[in-house]
Amino acid sequence: MSEYRQDKATREWILIATERARRPHDFRVKRSLGDLTLPEESCAFCPGNEAMTPPEFMAYRRGNEANGPGWWIRVVPNKYPALTPQGSPDRWMQERFFRKMDGVGRHEVIIDGPRHDCALPLMDDWHAEELLWVYRERFLVLQQDARIKLIIIFKNHGLASGSSVQHPHSQIIATSVVPLNIRNKLYEAARYYDEHGRCVYCDMVREELQDGKRIVMENEAFVVYHPFASRVPFETWIVPKAHEACFALISPHNSKTFAHTLKAVWLRLHMALNDPDLNYVLHTRRSIHEVSESYHWHLQIMPRFTTAAGFELGSGIYINTALPEETAAFLRE
Amino acid sequence: MSEYRQDKATREWILIATERARRPHDFRVKRSLGDLTLPEESCAFCPGNEAMTPPEFMAYRRGNEANGPGWWIRVVPNKYPALTPQGSPDRWMQERFFRKMDGVGRHEVIIDGPRHDCALPLMDDWHAEELLWVYRERFLVLQQDARIKLIIIFKNHGLASGSSVQHPHSQIIATSVVPLNIRNKLYEAARYYDEHGRCVYCDMVREELQDGKRIVMENEAFVVYHPFASRVPFETWIVPKAHEACFALISPHNSKTFAHTLKAVWLRLHMALNDPDLNYVLHTRRSIHEVSESYHWHLQIMPRFTTAAGFELGSGIYINTALPEETAAFLRE
Repeated sequence: MSEYRQDKATREWILIATERARRPHDFRVKRSLGDLTLPEESCAFCPGNEAMTPPEFMAYRRGNEANGPGWWIRVVPNKYPALTPQGSPDRWMQERFFRKMDGVGRHEVIIDGPRHDCALPLMDDWHAEELLWVYRERFLVLQQDARIKLIIIFKNHGLASGSSVQHPHSQIIATSVVPLNIRNKLYEAARYYDEHGRCVYCDMVREELQDGKRIVMENEAFVVYHPFASRVPFETWIVPKAHEACFALISPHNSKTFAHTLKAVWLRLHMALNDPDLNYVLHTRRSIHEVSESYHWHLQIMPRFTTAAGFELGSGIYINTALPEETAAFLRE
Repeated sequence: MSEYRQDKATREWILIATERARRPHDFRVKRSLGDLTLPEESCAFCPGNEAMTPPEFMAYRRGNEANGPGWWIRVVPNKYPALTPQGSPDRWMQERFFRKMDGVGRHEVIIDGPRHDCALPLMDDWHAEELLWVYRERFLVLQQDARIKLIIIFKNHGLASGSSVQHPHSQIIATSVVPLNIRNKLYEAARYYDEHGRCVYCDMVREELQDGKRIVMENEAFVVYHPFASRVPFETWIVPKAHEACFALISPHNSKTFAHTLKAVWLRLHMALNDPDLNYVLHTRRSIHEVSESYHWHLQIMPRFTTAAGFELGSGIYINTALPEETAAFLRE
């Protein structure tokens, strides 16, 4: 079982993932440049290799045979999970001083589709729609575990994104701690609401639409823009126009529009920038029962052109070498 | 001039560095793997090429001719600074809503030595000693600017560290904002002091020494260990045994010991792990006049074996795949 440990100096939690632990000498630098290319016959996410993953939680498939072929979206436990459902969220002291707890939580992999090389921007519309509906379905299951305090749905695409597998897949990690970043995000939203009586995300969307300089695209339900304080070049937010704290309350119709929007903006990035490595992260309240006037779910896309260096690691301040006004104009064209 | 912009949703500042800005289409992915190797004749940090950098602030050299050869440590402004001394720390509103300010601060490069390929672990002892003394000298100059609220001294070593230049160099960035990370670090130190009447770093050092499992080395003035909640494999802290909030109050004798300690522990990492890419960051109060019972300066070394992925970007929780008890034992041998 993995474990959370708390840094006494910052009270931030980190995860020691012993399931995927390497021995110290395994970190010796090889100086050979890695890549993600792998023959499909040895890819655990390709059809025919279903036995290489743990048994599935769910799948969209033709026929009834679980863990066989015929699926087009498949959800499985991560084989090397950072967190597992066993254990207790009790904090306990190690040797009177340091605090730790069981690595309790969830870590699931959503295999986006059967094709080894077809990422979301190149998928059929119906397939993208069903993928985002699966995000919602798994969220609805995971939120029922009362020990879960945060559910993060995300994607790593390409080597620079921290991905270790080429076959398109998404991940869900559900944790039993709320990290400082997220606590601060919720706190600031509440503080803004307290001061203005409005949701800060609603206000941002209204300002961005009025201004227009940083808008990439817009439809009846979503606004896509490069935020005023973009942390990295081409950072892109997709924000629903209607106020809603929890992503999983999305309507079937809006979920389809969300899929088309995500696909369309990623396709623009793909075409304009030659398939850049990127991460996306869905930020949402942890449950459909958490009604909130101040928080507003959204999806952040972070292309990975640069590597965080000592200053960013030490201060947490990002240095961005592009103007969001210029990158948004470039993507609009 | 670069500018700070504030994210309304988190109140975190980011830096838009227009001095080093690239046009949007420049981000198009080339798919050729970069490396840092550069012939020495075109390296701006090599002797003979002094004219390729802005005029120096200071140098340790034979002879009196500034900006000529004969130096063994040289400090120059960053040619593409993230921050510049001009401007005002006033926050101003952009179009009634977004907040930004001038990119006021400092960004200096310390060229560690004349040799293009000789990093600190392979330097002579006297050279390492003088390099750390230069850190202190520049800190003493920069802290005099009242607009400066944070001084970060750091090093990027190798491609994975975010470095763009092979020639060994250190950097100093001084900012006019205090980022959330640092505010939280100072706040938690004060909170711990309030609760226990002792410095949390002093307590951590005492616990680590008593326990011993995570200690890498120790001498009369410093303890080197892999922290209980290590964020990355082989994360290494160097902490002075005596309580001191500001690094620049270090005595000449202890500064030498600090240089030997940093050199020795980096040499162990270098030998054991085949010269891993890494960053180090010096954390300190911003001025020698900030007496503090609760804060304690320290240096953090972060080797860069892995890439932060979507979960880390979204939550701020690091997933570490190594046990600090095992990595410390490995380095002790």
